[in-house]
Amino acid sequence: MKYLVLESSAAAASCALLEGDKVLGEWYLNIPQTHSQTLLPMAEGLLAACGASPAGLDFFAVTRGPGSFTGLRIAMAAVKGMAMAAGKPCVGVSTLEALARNLTGFAGTAAAVMDARCGQVYAALFSLGSGGVERISPDEALSIGELSARLAQLEKPVFLVGDGAQLCYNKILEEKGEAPWLRLAPPHLRYQRAAAAGAAALAAWERGEAVDCGALEPVYLRLPQAQRELLKKQSGAAPEKGSRL
Amino acid sequence: MKYLVLESSAAAASCALLEGDKVLGEWYLNIPQTHSQTLLPMAEGLLAACGASPAGLDFFAVTRGPGSFTGLRIAMAAVKGMAMAAGKPCVGVSTLEALARNLTGFAGTAAAVMDARCGQVYAALFSLGSGGVERISPDEALSIGELSARLAQLEKPVFLVGDGAQLCYNKILEEKGEAPWLRLAPPHLRYQRAAAAGAAALAAWERGEAVDCGALEPVYLRLPQAQRELLKKQSGAAPEKGSRL
Repeated sequence: MKYLVLESSAAAASCALLEGDKVLGEWYLNIPQTHSQTLLPMAEGLLAACGASPAGLDFFAVTRGPGSFTGLRIAMAAVKGMAMAAGKPCVGVSTLEALARNLTGFAGTAAAVMDARCGQVYAALFSLGSGGVERISPDEALSIGELSARLAQLEKPVFLVGDGAQLCYNKILEEKGEAPWLRLAPPHLRYQRAAAAGAAALAAWERGEAVDCGALEPVYLRLPQAQRELLKKQSGAAPEKGSRL
Repeated sequence: MKYLVLESSAAAASCALLEGDKVLGEWYLNIPQTHSQTLLPMAEGLLAACGASPAGLDFFAVTRGPGSFTGLRIAMAAVKGMAMAAGKPCVGVSTLEALARNLTGFAGTAAAVMDARCGQVYAALFSLGSGGVERISPDEALSIGELSARLAQLEKPVFLVGDGAQLCYNKILEEKGEAPWLRLAPPHLRYQRAAAAGAAALAAWERGEAVDCGALEPVYLRLPQAQRELLKKQSGAAPEKGSRL
């Protein structure tokens, strides 16, 4: 069971080739460059380095959201294209589940958080332990205050992981003064990585969740900014500040 | 503080570019190909993707051993060459410490183990917890039986990490029947990775352990096979079977 995973839901971008649960290769970048310029050349380079080709793979996987509208579309379009050309199925996984799987083997709770701007984060909670990574709450958009109240109820320590981790950590410490049970995921596991997304994809594949490339859909959790602005305008509210998603 | 890390001490090979503790990029391969053919092109590709060049870095780091004699020499020669050309210092880190740092954030003990053949493993033990990764024992070559006896005394759970992890796990379970406190590091963190070696290198840099490229030396822990064979021959013992290191 050999599969390629693409991930470009936020600032980082990565691709991984896996066989079963073994990572044959993972190329990861977290630099301020456009994913549309880096992601496909990375995937091409990784496949070439591994002597693999799209036709020789069993399926293609991608983090389907939440995340940046543009970022999600870049990885998803690439995966749909390769899958269609090779005639192979696709698997889409939650970006937040992929983040939590970075922390497989940890003990406690993973709070996977992505900066959704406008005072919100995309968040989901997962139990970590010898049983693996188990989902506690669905992917949702909520305020850091709401997240903080939920974290206080959970098994400790709580590890913040994702591009919203530092933001939430700072805000919660500011609010509570101290929170020794709250930890940041270590730097090499802080951001989205295709290898851990691969573990989520293999689990989804084994549950029979593979689909035809035409049926693969991104999950944005919120309406695009233009549509939110339109709805606000129609209801007479003030426009959003600093929104990118 | 920007630095490039090369790692090719065993079957996997990887390179990472870091700035402080942030991983700007990491390219990792774990396929049966010669490191002499993959490592430098990977490093070149990573630097190019990040818009970086050797002259713009502060130092170069490498896992200096233990490990395969040939693998260690490939990464070390590349690092020495780049550091000499760029006129920058080098940092060498223990391969076993780098492996343990894959598990930063875990709770319990890390047993970093590499298959040294001839019935031995290269091993070192590290305490894992909120205080980070702290060394318990030096890098050494020992039998799996000796390792197993030591593991029984340590804080649980014990995570086996490295290319000797599965071997030790199987042998210890065979010996003990069961050992629920013994775990394998998750697949994406099982093998040597340059990003985690980078965390070890940054700590060494901050302790003032950088050296000139001419002073950087591999640490083999054992004599090369040819020298061991010669010593055995001189002492009248039988030659080794299945040795590669």
